[in-house]
Amino acid sequence: MFLGKVIGEVWSTRKVGDLEGKRLLVVEAIDQRDAPPAKKVTPVVAADPLGADVGERVIVAFGKAARVACGGDGDFAFEAAIVGIVDGVHPAAFPEEAS
Amino acid sequence: MFLGKVIGEVWSTRKVGDLEGKRLLVVEAIDQRDAPPAKKVTPVVAADPLGADVGERVIVAFGKAARVACGGDGDFAFEAAIVGIVDGVHPAAFPEEAS
Amino acid sequence: MFLGKVIGEVWSTRKVGDLEGKRLLVVEAIDQRDAPPAKKVTPVVAADPLGADVGERVIVAFGKAARVACGGDGDFAFEAAIVGIVDGVHPAAFPEEAS
Amino acid sequence: MFLGKVIGEVWSTRKVGDLEGKRLLVVEAIDQRDAPPAKKVTPVVAADPLGADVGERVIVAFGKAARVACGGDGDFAFEAAIVGIVDGVHPAAFPEEAS
Amino acid sequence: MFLGKVIGEVWSTRKVGDLEGKRLLVVEAIDQRDAPPAKKVTPVVAADPLGADVGERVIVAFGKAARVACGGDGDFAFEAAIVGIVDGVHPAAFPEEAS
Repeated sequence: MFLGKVIGEVWSTRKVGDLEGKRLLVVEAIDQRDAPPAKKVTPVVAADPLGADVGERVIVAFGKAARVACGGDGDFAFEAAIVGIVDGVHPAAFPEEAS
Repeated sequence: MFLGKVIGEVWSTRKVGDLEGKRLLVVEAIDQRDAPPAKKVTPVVAADPLGADVGERVIVAFGKAARVACGGDGDFAFEAAIVGIVDGVHPAAFPEEAS
Repeated sequence: MFLGKVIGEVWSTRKVGDLEGKRLLVVEAIDQRDAPPAKKVTPVVAADPLGADVGERVIVAFGKAARVACGGDGDFAFEAAIVGIVDGVHPAAFPEEAS
Repeated sequence: MFLGKVIGEVWSTRKVGDLEGKRLLVVEAIDQRDAPPAKKVTPVVAADPLGADVGERVIVAFGKAARVACGGDGDFAFEAAIVGIVDGVHPAAFPEEAS
Repeated sequence: MFLGKVIGEVWSTRKVGDLEGKRLLVVEAIDQRDAPPAKKVTPVVAADPLGADVGERVIVAFGKAARVACGGDGDFAFEAAIVGIVDGVHPAAFPEEAS
């Protein structure tokens, strides 16, 4: 799992059937100081069972964990999902929390 | 899953039997601004059940998700597949959409 | 598995049910000299069945290994877990041990 | 899966039983322009069911795909395998093909 | 799988039960020229069923392959293991072999 920030939602009309109606978010990895871990790390596309908003900080999980988060370990055509929306990290690590 | 751009199709005559007749595309990762996430990140080779064209932006999934996208979680000799062709990312992130 | 240092605990109220009551720690990778392997590698979020404290060095495992560490290979919505708290690396590699 | 170039064969006498008699090749990732994606990306060690030669460009797959390529999804002590030998990428991407 | 060099053994008294008595080595990735692939790539912690010594070059495998190497694909709390000790790479790639 990693910490990320939601930076957008993907729109796609031609996709495999299993993804119909699935909310797919683009998540950029962040470090504990709320900064991208590297300038140009590629963002992850994750299924979103929690209704996260653009700009929110989230926890993203992969593989079986992502499937379990979306209703049980079934046959899904995604392997990343948002499993939590982050309130904070303690000791306070994000800039706004340290102030 | 990650956002990518199709940059070519692989031709291969000597390959394992399971890949016979499979369309294999080379996909370069892109970030939400349509730029490669790093100058020299190695591109991914992905099975293509959707008929994506060179130059199109796509979502690539791995592992079980890739197998499910290509007809069910069977015994396949690939572990990456295109699961969606991207119309856009909202809020508008790609340069042409922002204009 | 990798060597890491616990740098914080994630607080999250909106999360998938399976993570209720789970202690989730933010772990930064370190090399054998106790330094981050790269300035801005993204930290990992890991379940913690051992009660590690912030600042402690730990071993983090992924996938099935993480599930086994947390009570058996069941359907969990996480895929990383702390499997050991590190006393040292021999030959002595951490600065304080070399002195 | 990724595009790579075979740069050598590993010799090992002390190894787990399952790898006895297995041809293990060292494969360096290349991008679509036949260049290493980064100066010092670590090469992958892959089982070779196809008889690839040093210098040939190949497709390498991981996990279940690698096992399927080597005779079915059994209990193998490797998780990477060569699944195809590359004739070319179209549109022509390798330098020699562009000429 | 990747090529690595053993740089130490991890000592840990507080760990999950499944790791009791397991030899855990710290392995730094090397390229075919015996150099680290990048200055600060994080080392991997791997179970060692072969008795590798510090300084030896090894092949490290992940996931099911690591479990198979340690006695069958059971429920283990590790996902990396040494599967071979390297005699050499041919064509000779390590500096001492080229001389």
